[in-house]
Amino acid sequence: MEMMFLWPGRTRNEKLRALQKEYLEKISRFCRAKIVESEEPRGLGEKWADNILEKEGKGLEKHLEDGYIICLSDKGKEMTSAELARLIESQALISARKLIFLVGGFLGLAPRIMDRANYKLPLSRMTLSHELARVVLLGQVY
Amino acid sequence: MEMMFLWPGRTRNEKLRALQKEYLEKISRFCRAKIVESEEPRGLGEKWADNILEKEGKGLEKHLEDGYIICLSDKGKEMTSAELARLIESQALISARKLIFLVGGFLGLAPRIMDRANYKLPLSRMTLSHELARVVLLGQVY
Repeated sequence: MEMMFLWPGRTRNEKLRALQKEYLEKISRFCRAKIVESEEPRGLGEKWADNILEKEGKGLEKHLEDGYIICLSDKGKEMTSAELARLIESQALISARKLIFLVGGFLGLAPRIMDRANYKLPLSRMTLSHELARVVLLGQVY
Repeated sequence: MEMMFLWPGRTRNEKLRALQKEYLEKISRFCRAKIVESEEPRGLGEKWADNILEKEGKGLEKHLEDGYIICLSDKGKEMTSAELARLIESQALISARKLIFLVGGFLGLAPRIMDRANYKLPLSRMTLSHELARVVLLGQVY
């Protein structure tokens, strides 16, 4: 089983970056896993939200291939840790496809990227910052 | 308004400790806030779970005073970020009581401590490690 954790751009908070690395190392003991931080547009202010999402989308698409995509989302049905573990196990059993966990940037994800999700997964009813959500996801998969 | 973030024992992961500090500093711009890491028993293995919870409970009780206690729990009704903000605001309006956010250790909390909660708050349907939960809580309150 192969896993990819994919998001647009570098996680900026140094401590959260360090935690990402720590959890990835733990996950890597059990399967092939990597973090991919795809291209992000530079120098666009928040008022260019659509342009940012569009450019991030293009960067993400290069990595989506034919994986099974689990996309963090504020919509969808929350899972328990056991349910997530079962989803991961069942994917590993029925298919050789890479499992791609996708987390958006501070603006979320372009709708056409979200539409490619095989599963939309909210981590919580609360809104977590996108960088913290990445770490919670990694901790959860571990 | 005064807030206390209370748990038994020191958060061991250095990166999570650093994040606790970072979020606490941000919260402290808006209100008086502190983290209290109460006494923890030493040298007891997991098979002494009841003893550990009992000793942790005694340490926690020293700090509970007459605050309004919001206790992280896997039971209870999940809130959105906006609902949590409203709960905090309404407490600040109706009472001068300190707001105490209580998070257990790796075994959770002694039942008699959990019984003192004015509100039981799950962060997610997923199970987070107690140390990561502390950071997610701080990030959420901020």
